[in-house]
Amino acid sequence: MNEKINIGIIGGSGFTGLELVKILKNHKYSNISFLTSRTYKNKEVSEVFPSIQDEKKNGLVFKETALKSDYENIDLLFLCLPPYNSMEHVHNTAGNKNYKIIDIGSDFRINDPASYKSWYGKDHIIPELLNDFVYGLPEINRDLIKKSSYVANPGCYPTSVLLGLAPLLKAGYELEHISIDSKSGVSGAGRKLAEPYLFGSLNNNFYPYCPKNHRHIGEMEQEIKKISGHDYKIDFTPHLLPINRGIFSSIYCKTVQGQADDFEENITEVYNDFYSDSIFVKVLTANIPQLKDVVGTNRCLVGISYDGRTSILKIFSAIDNLLKGAAGQAVQNMNLMFGLEEDEGLKMDGTYS
Amino acid sequence: MNEKINIGIIGGSGFTGLELVKILKNHKYSNISFLTSRTYKNKEVSEVFPSIQDEKKNGLVFKETALKSDYENIDLLFLCLPPYNSMEHVHNTAGNKNYKIIDIGSDFRINDPASYKSWYGKDHIIPELLNDFVYGLPEINRDLIKKSSYVANPGCYPTSVLLGLAPLLKAGYELEHISIDSKSGVSGAGRKLAEPYLFGSLNNNFYPYCPKNHRHIGEMEQEIKKISGHDYKIDFTPHLLPINRGIFSSIYCKTVQGQADDFEENITEVYNDFYSDSIFVKVLTANIPQLKDVVGTNRCLVGISYDGRTSILKIFSAIDNLLKGAAGQAVQNMNLMFGLEEDEGLKMDGTYS
Amino acid sequence: MNEKINIGIIGGSGFTGLELVKILKNHKYSNISFLTSRTYKNKEVSEVFPSIQDEKKNGLVFKETALKSDYENIDLLFLCLPPYNSMEHVHNTAGNKNYKIIDIGSDFRINDPASYKSWYGKDHIIPELLNDFVYGLPEINRDLIKKSSYVANPGCYPTSVLLGLAPLLKAGYELEHISIDSKSGVSGAGRKLAEPYLFGSLNNNFYPYCPKNHRHIGEMEQEIKKISGHDYKIDFTPHLLPINRGIFSSIYCKTVQGQADDFEENITEVYNDFYSDSIFVKVLTANIPQLKDVVGTNRCLVGISYDGRTSILKIFSAIDNLLKGAAGQAVQNMNLMFGLEEDEGLKMDGTYS
Amino acid sequence: MNEKINIGIIGGSGFTGLELVKILKNHKYSNISFLTSRTYKNKEVSEVFPSIQDEKKNGLVFKETALKSDYENIDLLFLCLPPYNSMEHVHNTAGNKNYKIIDIGSDFRINDPASYKSWYGKDHIIPELLNDFVYGLPEINRDLIKKSSYVANPGCYPTSVLLGLAPLLKAGYELEHISIDSKSGVSGAGRKLAEPYLFGSLNNNFYPYCPKNHRHIGEMEQEIKKISGHDYKIDFTPHLLPINRGIFSSIYCKTVQGQADDFEENITEVYNDFYSDSIFVKVLTANIPQLKDVVGTNRCLVGISYDGRTSILKIFSAIDNLLKGAAGQAVQNMNLMFGLEEDEGLKMDGTYS
Repeated sequence: MNEKINIGIIGGSGFTGLELVKILKNHKYSNISFLTSRTYKNKEVSEVFPSIQDEKKNGLVFKETALKSDYENIDLLFLCLPPYNSMEHVHNTAGNKNYKIIDIGSDFRINDPASYKSWYGKDHIIPELLNDFVYGLPEINRDLIKKSSYVANPGCYPTSVLLGLAPLLKAGYELEHISIDSKSGVSGAGRKLAEPYLFGSLNNNFYPYCPKNHRHIGEMEQEIKKISGHDYKIDFTPHLLPINRGIFSSIYCKTVQGQADDFEENITEVYNDFYSDSIFVKVLTANIPQLKDVVGTNRCLVGISYDGRTSILKIFSAIDNLLKGAAGQAVQNMNLMFGLEEDEGLKMDGTYS
Repeated sequence: MNEKINIGIIGGSGFTGLELVKILKNHKYSNISFLTSRTYKNKEVSEVFPSIQDEKKNGLVFKETALKSDYENIDLLFLCLPPYNSMEHVHNTAGNKNYKIIDIGSDFRINDPASYKSWYGKDHIIPELLNDFVYGLPEINRDLIKKSSYVANPGCYPTSVLLGLAPLLKAGYELEHISIDSKSGVSGAGRKLAEPYLFGSLNNNFYPYCPKNHRHIGEMEQEIKKISGHDYKIDFTPHLLPINRGIFSSIYCKTVQGQADDFEENITEVYNDFYSDSIFVKVLTANIPQLKDVVGTNRCLVGISYDGRTSILKIFSAIDNLLKGAAGQAVQNMNLMFGLEEDEGLKMDGTYS
Repeated sequence: MNEKINIGIIGGSGFTGLELVKILKNHKYSNISFLTSRTYKNKEVSEVFPSIQDEKKNGLVFKETALKSDYENIDLLFLCLPPYNSMEHVHNTAGNKNYKIIDIGSDFRINDPASYKSWYGKDHIIPELLNDFVYGLPEINRDLIKKSSYVANPGCYPTSVLLGLAPLLKAGYELEHISIDSKSGVSGAGRKLAEPYLFGSLNNNFYPYCPKNHRHIGEMEQEIKKISGHDYKIDFTPHLLPINRGIFSSIYCKTVQGQADDFEENITEVYNDFYSDSIFVKVLTANIPQLKDVVGTNRCLVGISYDGRTSILKIFSAIDNLLKGAAGQAVQNMNLMFGLEEDEGLKMDGTYS
Repeated sequence: MNEKINIGIIGGSGFTGLELVKILKNHKYSNISFLTSRTYKNKEVSEVFPSIQDEKKNGLVFKETALKSDYENIDLLFLCLPPYNSMEHVHNTAGNKNYKIIDIGSDFRINDPASYKSWYGKDHIIPELLNDFVYGLPEINRDLIKKSSYVANPGCYPTSVLLGLAPLLKAGYELEHISIDSKSGVSGAGRKLAEPYLFGSLNNNFYPYCPKNHRHIGEMEQEIKKISGHDYKIDFTPHLLPINRGIFSSIYCKTVQGQADDFEENITEVYNDFYSDSIFVKVLTANIPQLKDVVGTNRCLVGISYDGRTSILKIFSAIDNLLKGAAGQAVQNMNLMFGLEEDEGLKMDGTYS
């Protein structure tokens, strides 16, 4: 392939939108046709966000909204919008059929309208489209994504959790119980102006939030069922870390008692096999995953530890919530949908060493 | 009481020793007779650590070691020593019987010599004393501590976990399983010069360590058994937070299915009753505990959340690892042992607001 | 003295107000009669701010506003209000003459109405009172403060700068030029909800702000003139540090060329003499001041370094902006005004060691 | 050009070496022939530093030392070594003439052997080579660098300061005095295991270090003289910031009094002209530079503010010390030396937005 993919981005000035811009700027086959931002309409991206270089003065400028003619010239649309806004956008632009869509928001991740309502508290306005969107976790659904025009990019927590659990569940291991303790950097909350997100409130601090019924549970249980065939009810508790980026999930799986001595070793092999074709997931053996090793990359590091005393299998999973948990994974999906190398534009190493 | 307690401190220049000095300096009935430090022998405390004020030039000076005559004049000895060193010290000064001892180290927390060996990898050199030391968690053992001469100050993780679990276990609730995900600030590791503790390694980072068989498990299971009568095997995973001080434990208790709708409310009442006489433990109802609300205090904040979907009772517990988890609790024990108000010298509010 | 001072606090829920509450709670001669907060009216302090202990259930509750009868029973009023609000408050309660006032805000620091207007952009509404307020920097104006009923508590930056410069200026050294590069933790901005103060914006970041005509310059030049007799125009640039608390000022004084070899030594002696009676200022010789050594204390650490190559005398000054730079200094002033020991309630050691 | 440049790296496991590896991995015309590390000899880079991806299993492995045959196959050698080690290395490998050298260390930055000795305290062992090394600040010496085989990569502080001062000095403005207050993230100190660099020591902290005669002064004064023709004695004070990466320099220039009203505007134009061909330096007008906008990039952001009250021109300069201050600039020099686009491999946007 040697033509460029023409791309539109709706909601380009949030953390996810900007990470997308940074990746696409250095992506060999991408051309950003337009990107929108109500807050910064008509402003140059590199003026508002000096961390983004525009040395060639390409004039990447935020538009307030995209016009009908804008949509006519694109091959792919990324939606970086808050809950309920993606489905409204798709609903309002439903006549446009000529481009693919990757929704980085949460509106098309749940397949069942009733389940959507129970987790999101509202009726879905275009439930008939829910099954057209493939759940965009490439390590699980690579082939489906390649063939699909509509992709729902997974949530940040679900990405970290599902990559940690998939090989185990796929291999058919039965679990009595799954408890997940996740910790996220503050960028997961976007640029929300609220006291808990002030530097003075979060620096030196740590705490859980939303200890019951976090929305991502619905998405996780749905995918866990697809992988395992079982109706697991998972226990999930998110916490807020005093860092900018990164999600670390500690997943505690209660196994059937009396595992063999080489259980940890066997499980590690299962994981290595499962991810043998997945460039972005690395199963560590000598080390335990650390956030600093994934921040700035599109990778997921996985660690495995089995405690024979309690029959608990501990799975540790680390990702950058804005990359593998959002914009990076979205470009990975784009690469698959357009027949490109899966890691085109995503070869970044970590920020810390 | 109007006489002062004469106090000796062995190992006074570590984090715990210094917090002890800061508390005792403002304690109405305390007089520091001597404190030792090999590293800083013959140096004034306020010169080596300018954060400690010595405006009256009392000349608080580190001694290299304490002499026999030093021990003759004290009423109480605090040991702030690494593993194996407290028992050596007690062994070597065994002739001195005239003072009480609070060991802030880990050598006298385990009662059973065999258990000690299995967790600490060595034989205890004075096993006959193990049962003379009371486990110094005042909220559980207040009366025993009042009558005792030797107190083993609990570990930082066990303090946070046991305060979170005690009321539930004491009330006789049966649990299928207990998984504990604890997160600690770096001061828990002292001033160890090693790459993981460098600012460049820990800032913006997060990860678990020692995922199997952390030594504090032995201490926790021992005390859990005393409280509940049950031989629980607990699952415990410590993590390192990019902050200086504070331990946050998220405790996941798998309860018997089918709890009543008001289970959370009932449990909260159980906790409030249990801690009605405990000035330092506060059960939050409107809020979830946050580390910033305990750092700088001797308090433990506890939060309770029951998830009916999974029958998991989540208990959140936050302490300052250097205060309630070490030096503060040691002074609380001292107050009890000498018949003082339990919070004398410990009325500090939090550092952050 | 053995009676308690009855105290009112207007604006009690900001950072400064809360630090004041924490100090006064443990102050032997203080009784908080009332404290106000519009935001948290009728709420218990320890409920809104769990870091503040209220173990005895004294019921310290925020009032929306203070009533006339409230003012009748107090000996001292602290004003913790934003610019323009203190003078309005004093104006509106002018009939009340029975209590002393310490204004921690900025409205009464400038003596000359014209100067006030030029720095604050508005006419002062009670200019006739400007000279009744003593500038509350105890190390300079101790005797005046003791005799005064109205005290204007200095700004945080001016406190750090004036304590750094006073001995040098008082001793009559002539300077060609003074450049001040100050760095402040974010608590100086209060709890303002604005993007620059979000954790995601400030963590890992650093930058200057307000590089021209910061309001504190007027206050500093006024006091510098009183001390030195000279009309110095100082150059002042504040910067924002990714920390919660602390101000560090690096003060570059261009001296007359050709100082003797022992200039640094002599200057250090001048400083030590000047501060010989000042319990809270410590001139370091072996070390350079660090913020971690003052955070949590009411102290100012000063360091001196003379560079013969450039004839620049560098003075380093470190304070906790919320304590020596605000609430701590206010209580120090209170102690002086009521004939108490200057450090009553202010014996706190640093938070970090 | 379509052949790859074969590259050797001596000292590849420090912060600078690893940043170099990360850049070169994604550089179109680079091939890393070997890299050395005593500490990690025979280990794979991506195993020791999991933040560095090696998805294609290229087997980038640290060698203990480079052999004679290794040197025969390279076109370019990067030296990432501590003081005194680069000159020893060049001395010992002097027979090899077939490759170019970029020394990222400090041994070849000073041209005059006597000056070298006065700043570095030792005799230079190959003084005859000092003038063969071009000072590798491309924005000043672009043409020289293009033609040179040996380049001394500037120090991190000098890069930030010289880029801030060059246009002003080149334009012939006379200055009475230059005071520079620089602040650096801790990566400037490498991975040194010493108490000041522990997380517990630096988090929430800030202070100056080396207030007299920092070695970088010699380098700065030498280059300032080349640019301006004047023998300026500059005043320079480095400070340590509680962040990983970034240097921020606040440069205070005392100008001749009585500048015209449009002085700031004129100076800004001078800067814009000077940097019109420099892709990596951006003069901000609407904003003040912030570290977060340069961290992760090879850029320098410059801000200008003139204070008529004091005749002080303030220049603010922000860089990433590991990129524009070290490895990034080294690759920029390599690009020039090999006739490539100046920003090949250096198009990274900032990490924070």
